[in-house]
Amino acid sequence: MKGNIVVGQSGGPTAVINSSVAGVFSAAKKLGVKKIYGMVHGIQGFLQDNLIDLGEYLDDETGIELLKRTPSAFLGSCRFKMPKIEGHEDVYEKVFEIMEKHDIECLFYAGGNDSMDTVKMLSDYAAAHNKPQRFMGVPKTIDNDLPITDHCPGYGSAAKYIAASLKEIIRDNESFGVEKPTVCIVEIMGRNAGWLTAAAALAKGEDCSGVDAIYLPERVFDMDKFMATVKHLAETKSSVVIAVSEGIHVADGKYVCELANENVAVDAFGHKQMSGTAAFLAAQVAAETGLKTRAVEFSTLQRAATHMASLTDINEAFQVGHDAVVAAEEGKTGMMITLDRNGDDPYQCGTSAYDIHAIANVERPVPDEWITEDGIGLNEGYEKYARPLIMGELQPLYVNGLPRHLVRK
Amino acid sequence: MKGNIVVGQSGGPTAVINSSVAGVFSAAKKLGVKKIYGMVHGIQGFLQDNLIDLGEYLDDETGIELLKRTPSAFLGSCRFKMPKIEGHEDVYEKVFEIMEKHDIECLFYAGGNDSMDTVKMLSDYAAAHNKPQRFMGVPKTIDNDLPITDHCPGYGSAAKYIAASLKEIIRDNESFGVEKPTVCIVEIMGRNAGWLTAAAALAKGEDCSGVDAIYLPERVFDMDKFMATVKHLAETKSSVVIAVSEGIHVADGKYVCELANENVAVDAFGHKQMSGTAAFLAAQVAAETGLKTRAVEFSTLQRAATHMASLTDINEAFQVGHDAVVAAEEGKTGMMITLDRNGDDPYQCGTSAYDIHAIANVERPVPDEWITEDGIGLNEGYEKYARPLIMGELQPLYVNGLPRHLVRK
Repeated sequence: MKGNIVVGQSGGPTAVINSSVAGVFSAAKKLGVKKIYGMVHGIQGFLQDNLIDLGEYLDDETGIELLKRTPSAFLGSCRFKMPKIEGHEDVYEKVFEIMEKHDIECLFYAGGNDSMDTVKMLSDYAAAHNKPQRFMGVPKTIDNDLPITDHCPGYGSAAKYIAASLKEIIRDNESFGVEKPTVCIVEIMGRNAGWLTAAAALAKGEDCSGVDAIYLPERVFDMDKFMATVKHLAETKSSVVIAVSEGIHVADGKYVCELANENVAVDAFGHKQMSGTAAFLAAQVAAETGLKTRAVEFSTLQRAATHMASLTDINEAFQVGHDAVVAAEEGKTGMMITLDRNGDDPYQCGTSAYDIHAIANVERPVPDEWITEDGIGLNEGYEKYARPLIMGELQPLYVNGLPRHLVRK
Repeated sequence: MKGNIVVGQSGGPTAVINSSVAGVFSAAKKLGVKKIYGMVHGIQGFLQDNLIDLGEYLDDETGIELLKRTPSAFLGSCRFKMPKIEGHEDVYEKVFEIMEKHDIECLFYAGGNDSMDTVKMLSDYAAAHNKPQRFMGVPKTIDNDLPITDHCPGYGSAAKYIAASLKEIIRDNESFGVEKPTVCIVEIMGRNAGWLTAAAALAKGEDCSGVDAIYLPERVFDMDKFMATVKHLAETKSSVVIAVSEGIHVADGKYVCELANENVAVDAFGHKQMSGTAAFLAAQVAAETGLKTRAVEFSTLQRAATHMASLTDINEAFQVGHDAVVAAEEGKTGMMITLDRNGDDPYQCGTSAYDIHAIANVERPVPDEWITEDGIGLNEGYEKYARPLIMGELQPLYVNGLPRHLVRK
């Protein structure tokens, strides 16, 4: 590559999105790229020419290792949606103007569905206007809902955090329960796809009986059936722990969290901001059964807990960043790097580059065949798929008793 | 010791309460005690003669090491309050009857204020009725509110989890904030004492600007002042993260969580079950400022996250269990083991045995002199006190990608 490159991060952070930046940086450095820029706060910051020189932070291997252990988006993120091209050519021209100003040959963008739309729009614009600049997508989303790729970097670490925390919560909940069980309802992220909530199934093992029911947004939520299930569990068990997706909805399409609060806020992409599903259900169960209930929301922690990241996930996040640069070097543009599973035992995974048009704005739900017949559990198909993704650990660097992070000056 | 012993766990679990059981077991084994029993579900289970032989689980060092890495109460816990002696002599006689049946010479009870009351009542009864059995308290509470002892086992690990998780949350919250900041309000346990919430101050360091305000139950909460502070922070910062205790209350004594929900449930000890303070405040801020808000409750996780336990805390929890047995061997009864700090640099801590009457039912708040003048921060006095307590780590044993725990058969 003769020119420089820039990498950005977009959308909700993950525990390993910084490993993708590390991967982009490492590959570009190997290729002798002179300046490796980072855009501060994604394409929104890029439009304001807000760039940093990553070489100032990652000039030695210690910097790379610390970046891998740093949660959230090191470069800052954004939820900026590129406007449609017609009538907004100025916004697009601005992007290319800034790229030319810094001699940037290729732009790498790590993100989920919405961010891949940005890559698509920019590469479409470049193609339509004969611009030489290239645009590559680097997959990242705890939601694991990008199509084509076997899974998404960020998911394995979120799944590991969810399963590990649920094991701790189950143990805590089991410690009482001499007379009547406490019903603990745990709310997990995932607007339309239940991948994260499905990870609750991974808590089960030799030393843990697991959660008692898992409610995914892939199935319509029925309050009467839910209440009957809870009552049955409370009669037969000394501890009840239930995982629910924030995105569960009743038959008319209304989210359960909207049953509690009609005025749910909406973000820049028109997505409703979910919260309060577990608290609402816990209150309903307490009122109807008189049992003690507890609502837990993993909230931000499930996407920020780099201290519990999966090493497999960290390595794959690094790999997709690295291989995006390799693909761009080969002249590719308008593509996203996918993870392609080659084997389960032992687990093996490669990468390839795939046309962004097949990926942007497409959401992939949990496959039907992995959901148990009663609709509130996952079977061994999911276990086989997900377990390898949570394997391995990268010990944080502890300073003064806490994990140390890399920060922008 | 000629007879056998029994150890129990009571009240809310901590990340390290099992290390105290390990300490009791190890000391008793060294002394040649034949049977080391564990009571299942505390004194409530003991009254039903529900005992296990700890030797079956801890006969090798691997068992001990796994127990140290196991969250929650391995033996099960309870919230059972011993009735007053007058009119309930039968309950007390039952305890001694079961002790005699199993030739139990000494009972060790790990817990907080309420549990130390159980130790006091039983040792008082023994003294009044010339019973030879001995009773020793082993301190345990994430709340850190026991008097006399410098600090309580369980606190350091909860503080470490809170500070480490807040660093991750702050990073996540900072990743956006291009235009307007998100106001994130984090609710932390602690009914009357703000020790756990104070731990939010430990997040601050070279790589983290820390939380922006800390609201302790030691200070009356004023909604107008709170709102003015939030508005000021939102005008001057690109990210606002605020820590609040679940126990904050307004001038007339009403808890903030009661402002949202009048019908707060009450547990066996008459303590109100707190929750929803952060959600209530976040909704108030959103309504008054129009800013995006987020409410996070650490909930159960702050007392169950053994994967993030402090090694200092694990070792001290082990030590107080161990030294309770040594004190009992010396003939002591009706006492609790205290942690006595001997130095800060380097940190050094010993133990002694202290009369349980001075400890049971007494709550120690955060000292006034460690709270900043504005009432929403902690000063270097707290830092000096708390930092040593979160130092060190004990790596979990990972099996299939998750921390492995020891379980009762």
